[in-house]
Amino acid sequence: MILCDIGNTFLHFYHEGRVWKESPQKILRKREDKIFYISVSNKNLEALLNICPQSINLAPYFTLDTAYRGLGIDRIAACQTISDGVVIDAGSAITIDIMQDGMHLGGYILPGIASYLRLFSGISERLRIMPDLSLDLDLMPQNTKEAISLGMLKSIVNFIQEVSKGKIIYFSGGDGKFFSKFFKNSIYNEMLVFNGMQKAMEVYYEKNS
Amino acid sequence: MILCDIGNTFLHFYHEGRVWKESPQKILRKREDKIFYISVSNKNLEALLNICPQSINLAPYFTLDTAYRGLGIDRIAACQTISDGVVIDAGSAITIDIMQDGMHLGGYILPGIASYLRLFSGISERLRIMPDLSLDLDLMPQNTKEAISLGMLKSIVNFIQEVSKGKIIYFSGGDGKFFSKFFKNSIYNEMLVFNGMQKAMEVYYEKNS
Repeated sequence: MILCDIGNTFLHFYHEGRVWKESPQKILRKREDKIFYISVSNKNLEALLNICPQSINLAPYFTLDTAYRGLGIDRIAACQTISDGVVIDAGSAITIDIMQDGMHLGGYILPGIASYLRLFSGISERLRIMPDLSLDLDLMPQNTKEAISLGMLKSIVNFIQEVSKGKIIYFSGGDGKFFSKFFKNSIYNEMLVFNGMQKAMEVYYEKNS
Repeated sequence: MILCDIGNTFLHFYHEGRVWKESPQKILRKREDKIFYISVSNKNLEALLNICPQSINLAPYFTLDTAYRGLGIDRIAACQTISDGVVIDAGSAITIDIMQDGMHLGGYILPGIASYLRLFSGISERLRIMPDLSLDLDLMPQNTKEAISLGMLKSIVNFIQEVSKGKIIYFSGGDGKFFSKFFKNSIYNEMLVFNGMQKAMEVYYEKNS
């Protein structure tokens, strides 16, 4: 049995303790006959269904107490794994969800690091620069590379600090490990979404047994 | 005599107390024979030189005490008009420059509001949304529109607040008026860059008289 979390850029897989990602263009045929998936991208979902048409959508087996309309299924999955704290998926977008007493209070969306790069290249040739992610946040920028890198990093880190209000922060996603090091009260867990999916799978098996 | 500040998106003009902008594709022939300009875009500079080849570049007539390498000439112009404070040009990019005792200490670059929009459309169809700029910053977002709008607004406003450290903030640029309302200690002045250019013009006339 394989779990698959289909994002806007990659398909993320989990199988027997192993986690990996594949791009929709180069997705490999899976030998397992059962793939449980969630998806925020219809386009990338097609890529999975092409190699495994009998895959099962876990979306109907989630419940989350929230007033938020249109919350992505990956965010719902991750939020289900904790009762209190901030759930952050740092990928092509950065989603920030606030949980309290088992309730989802609301959430924010910021551009991810890779998106910032595309964005600045689009504004001006002079801003087509690879940011330096190793800079000290307290440095005063003295060139375009530092000005863009620290503008991006400080604005994201400050924002997370402010909306987290001292809660524990649970990071996942491609840049989750990187961002977690800026916060003492944080945990990086690449399994966050998959743990939520495992909970939904239990519901699935209860209803289908 | 006309002043022209050539940006990445528009050409900004000043003439006899009037300020206006023109897009490089639709730039109108100017009757005045003397246009003094500064430019951060070679492509858009061409558009000006096509209608007025004898235009004069003011860039050589600026001096700014700074260790920053590659500071845009528009930022240099605006910074020359103040001795202490934060100079923010909120356009397609948001530049934030820190002045103290007549010295430029350094600066940051953030994406502008319009760039955020392009950016999110690039990540996912679901994020192709016009943000709501009228939202209360303390609202807890309950849908994608609010999540993106408040992610963008709060991260920019918090960032400016933090790096300004109580200094007076001088806003200019297309979104300058909008952002200035979030800060008690701020002044919106669409003439900031032009005032700097007027100072450089005095130097030009001294050297060429």
